[in-house]
Amino acid sequence: MESFEGIYDVVVVGGGHGGCEAALASARMGARTLLLNLHLENAALMACNPSMGGPAKGHLIREVDALGGFQARVTDRTTLQLRWLNTSKGPAVRTLRAQCDLVQYHLAFRMLLETTQNLEVHQGEVTDLWVEQGRIRGVRTALGDPIEARRVVLAAGTYLAGVAHIGLHRFASGPLGELPASRLSDSLRREGFRVERLKTGTTPRLHADTVDWASLPLQESDPEPGAFSHFSPKRTYQGYPCAQIRTNRRTHDLIRAHLDRSPLFTGVIQGVGPRYCPSIEDKVVRFPERDSHPVFLEPLSATNREIYVQNLSTSLPYDVQVALVRTLPGCERAKVLKPGYAIEYDYLPPTQLEPWLETKGVKGLFCAGQTNGTSGYEEAASQGLLAGINAVRTLRGEDPVVLGRHEAYLGVLVDDLVTKGTQEPYRMLTSRCEHRLLLRHDNADRRLAPLGRRLGLLEDRDWALLTERWRRQDDLEERLQALRVAPTDRVRSLLASWDTPAPEEPLTAKELLRRPQITWDRLAELCGLEGEDREAGEYVAVETKYQGYVERQERQVARMRRFDEVPLPEGFDFRSVPGLLTESLTKLERVRPRTLGQAGRISGVTPADLQLLWATLEVRRRRDSRG
Amino acid sequence: MESFEGIYDVVVVGGGHGGCEAALASARMGARTLLLNLHLENAALMACNPSMGGPAKGHLIREVDALGGFQARVTDRTTLQLRWLNTSKGPAVRTLRAQCDLVQYHLAFRMLLETTQNLEVHQGEVTDLWVEQGRIRGVRTALGDPIEARRVVLAAGTYLAGVAHIGLHRFASGPLGELPASRLSDSLRREGFRVERLKTGTTPRLHADTVDWASLPLQESDPEPGAFSHFSPKRTYQGYPCAQIRTNRRTHDLIRAHLDRSPLFTGVIQGVGPRYCPSIEDKVVRFPERDSHPVFLEPLSATNREIYVQNLSTSLPYDVQVALVRTLPGCERAKVLKPGYAIEYDYLPPTQLEPWLETKGVKGLFCAGQTNGTSGYEEAASQGLLAGINAVRTLRGEDPVVLGRHEAYLGVLVDDLVTKGTQEPYRMLTSRCEHRLLLRHDNADRRLAPLGRRLGLLEDRDWALLTERWRRQDDLEERLQALRVAPTDRVRSLLASWDTPAPEEPLTAKELLRRPQITWDRLAELCGLEGEDREAGEYVAVETKYQGYVERQERQVARMRRFDEVPLPEGFDFRSVPGLLTESLTKLERVRPRTLGQAGRISGVTPADLQLLWATLEVRRRRDSRG
Repeated sequence: MESFEGIYDVVVVGGGHGGCEAALASARMGARTLLLNLHLENAALMACNPSMGGPAKGHLIREVDALGGFQARVTDRTTLQLRWLNTSKGPAVRTLRAQCDLVQYHLAFRMLLETTQNLEVHQGEVTDLWVEQGRIRGVRTALGDPIEARRVVLAAGTYLAGVAHIGLHRFASGPLGELPASRLSDSLRREGFRVERLKTGTTPRLHADTVDWASLPLQESDPEPGAFSHFSPKRTYQGYPCAQIRTNRRTHDLIRAHLDRSPLFTGVIQGVGPRYCPSIEDKVVRFPERDSHPVFLEPLSATNREIYVQNLSTSLPYDVQVALVRTLPGCERAKVLKPGYAIEYDYLPPTQLEPWLETKGVKGLFCAGQTNGTSGYEEAASQGLLAGINAVRTLRGEDPVVLGRHEAYLGVLVDDLVTKGTQEPYRMLTSRCEHRLLLRHDNADRRLAPLGRRLGLLEDRDWALLTERWRRQDDLEERLQALRVAPTDRVRSLLASWDTPAPEEPLTAKELLRRPQITWDRLAELCGLEGEDREAGEYVAVETKYQGYVERQERQVARMRRFDEVPLPEGFDFRSVPGLLTESLTKLERVRPRTLGQAGRISGVTPADLQLLWATLEVRRRRDSRG
Repeated sequence: MESFEGIYDVVVVGGGHGGCEAALASARMGARTLLLNLHLENAALMACNPSMGGPAKGHLIREVDALGGFQARVTDRTTLQLRWLNTSKGPAVRTLRAQCDLVQYHLAFRMLLETTQNLEVHQGEVTDLWVEQGRIRGVRTALGDPIEARRVVLAAGTYLAGVAHIGLHRFASGPLGELPASRLSDSLRREGFRVERLKTGTTPRLHADTVDWASLPLQESDPEPGAFSHFSPKRTYQGYPCAQIRTNRRTHDLIRAHLDRSPLFTGVIQGVGPRYCPSIEDKVVRFPERDSHPVFLEPLSATNREIYVQNLSTSLPYDVQVALVRTLPGCERAKVLKPGYAIEYDYLPPTQLEPWLETKGVKGLFCAGQTNGTSGYEEAASQGLLAGINAVRTLRGEDPVVLGRHEAYLGVLVDDLVTKGTQEPYRMLTSRCEHRLLLRHDNADRRLAPLGRRLGLLEDRDWALLTERWRRQDDLEERLQALRVAPTDRVRSLLASWDTPAPEEPLTAKELLRRPQITWDRLAELCGLEGEDREAGEYVAVETKYQGYVERQERQVARMRRFDEVPLPEGFDFRSVPGLLTESLTKLERVRPRTLGQAGRISGVTPADLQLLWATLEVRRRRDSRG
């Protein structure tokens, strides 16, 4: 008898932040989808901190949302605290960060999974890939049941051969308290994949009622309403403040005194950890000159009393963790509910992937999230969404979606991974993105929603909401272009008070808006536009201010794209290119880029190499066109 | 450095239904208490069905509630569906059964644990008992941290060396998806405990939206409001019906055809399973003449789409489970979210316990729940509560609480366990209880709340509510005793319509209430008492009707208690009793009863043995009083 009837279009392995988006996208595009998870109670588990967003990560959430994913919507539904970041750096780089209720976040995603058409959910451990002749046929579970599938998305997170470390104690584990997936890595190796080891970690959790909150500076939610999703009403939140505190010399002395019992500094942990989210012992050792590092106390849920200690990730022994916590202000009597720990896990170095997240080694197998060497819920969700979309696209014989670096942070993320690979948990940063002015938090919908709509991931109601918003913005922009502001006394005096000169001749409102001093609110006051839609006004203000830069970036992008439009055929023999340096050859053969542009972004590949590649391709093209 | 400072009064190992009550009781009695749990996310996990109560189990919940435990209160707060059972058998044996939301049930208990004074909670695996000179000193965790404690309560459930079976696949596991506690059993053996093996199991879980509910007979909540707790308002519930269906020949044929892949019937499972909750394959094999068994489809939570299949516990292979489910009406297309499984686990045969749940082998170590060989959330909670109470009582040099068989189902439960032991998962049944008429659902408060109050487990507000309720009942009873009902025409005609003769002379209302035909509602109609408190009226009606029987049972109890008042000294040498049969001697030495009454309840110990024991004790007493 068969446990699972027929052939699934797509099987998703893992129900974390990547797997959830992959499965939802695949099912909503109409593919018969199965999500397999080790434990249904850990779907969309926030295994580390309870926060979503922040610089670059917030951009990713917005992009996932514009494409029809769910991370932003669920965040908005389960937020405890919401803050605007980078407000002083101008509206273009503003972004949001939310603290979520991790219990409700899980429950919301679990309910979504169980109420989406075409999607089946099943608790089970995948132990083997089923591959025939280089092509995926399905998976096998611990119970021996073969499950046939045309496409498989692997999003196994830190569960993949997970080993937890607390001091010098180590044990097979998923996120603490969860089972690991111990057998799947061997199957990946048998299929010829390079499988390597990464490490991440998390902080001890405290009992809220053992912290002396009254003595600490609290950060409340911002009074300005906000929402991650383009489709959620903007809201304000109350009642779940975080506390900002700092480590001190006693903290650092204590850490230094116990490095001999640290798995990181005794060589027990082999995997490389996240550079931008290091453990506290790492920070203390790397920056000996600093006496203090910032730490945040963050609530995890309204349903329990657990507190996350942001920036205090540690794998020191438990007794040291307790003492460490108690060196912190307000935490002198704090009780620890759960220890911090490091976790080592397997990943597939992502140069083994095509730019659409399919593995090069096994056709029909896609990977997402920590399996690709990234860290972060947002990075995982973005890749999961793209993998789910492309599993379905390739199944239907359609071109896979590959986003350019100029189109989305998601494009940068995937291009970085598949082109440069990563030897440490990859985190999205605004600095990785050369076209930041094009890729704003506030224009993710314009950039990506049309694609989400074409893919069938945005419903009529959502699409109507967006198109109406765009119409309002465009309409306002046109009117500002037509509105002439004469230098009356009132105008002169207002402009003077804002430290910007009055014009000699009338200017259009749009021209005034170009000035850095003229915010939307000031323009509205100047021109009596207070009744206009403020959201539209702010959008037009940002667009207007950045117009010059944006146009310059767009010209740059156009130049770069020419390289990206030169394809390198699958199986292209780089050894046939005369004159390539051995180092360049090695890297090109490892990554096997799909375009000249991608080749150029591999670190160590020089403009001269590109020239040689281009020449070879050109010779071949002429020969072929003659042939 | 120490992870845990100082000496705890009580450490509770395990946060299931037993451990939660133990920890809450201990802390609320003022003892410094630590609860250690493998995973804080599985506190008070309903690992099997989502229901609470029913015959005998409902009585236990009421008793736990009257003593100041939380099972009833949390049940009332998280009920999805509530039904009255045994309503046709008369009010004395009526009881409630609730279907709970298992997600909310867990969350409510977790919050209670984290907000109770004197109680600390910590995620950690206990691997060793720390025993010195036959007395508990504390425990050690997987991280090596020793935790010093004056008393330890062990409530490890099926986690203790748990091994799950699905078909012929077996793997170390707690409840499916949870980690087991694999190392503690060895420590128990090293301390000289007999550790044996039991087995239990659970059913596959279905996806609600793949069941054809429209074709099935649904059971809704009762329209009559109810509450388990003496302290909760009575409520009605809506919207979460169960479906009652039956297995059929196809189901049974399928099971018979696959017994060769059943771990139960191929000898893979060694542990003995629960007699009153057998697997479906057990039932089909044991009752070959039956074509069908009842099955219920029950919702597990409002937060997900998971359905429990009551009575379909199975450890058949997963593919057979899927086929099995689909032979059921309305389930022809059902999808399975999680497989059913059997789980084997270690327990301590409970004749190793004193009647106050302390182990005989290690002073200061108490055990509760499945560790003592019981099954059921209610049985576990009852023992947990008692173990927690007695851990604190013995610590303070106070007499431990031992409830008599005539005082509580809890008394019967514990006496059965420590006197008779159990070779299979023990379930509470009304038939185990020889004084059923004394131990009613509706008088648990009168029987046990005064003790709960003395123990400090009932707060002023709760106690005031009860004493006010009792005052109303007593007052009403007095008034009914004084109220004379004359045989007027109206009275005659009403009594005739209820098939009960009219009296010649006036009777008191209380005398009328003795008649089986005269319910409280009828008496109220007859005497114009409709304005009285109906709850009080029904209580008095039951008390009145059963008065004769109750008095007879009380006389019986008094006779039996004489035996229970004859103590057998600790370390009593049964070999010094001349004339005991070898079989009796073996059993007495194994159980080491603490009273003559307990000795008499050991199966195989005869009245003649008791006579010999009594004579020996008497001789000794006289000698001692002379000496």
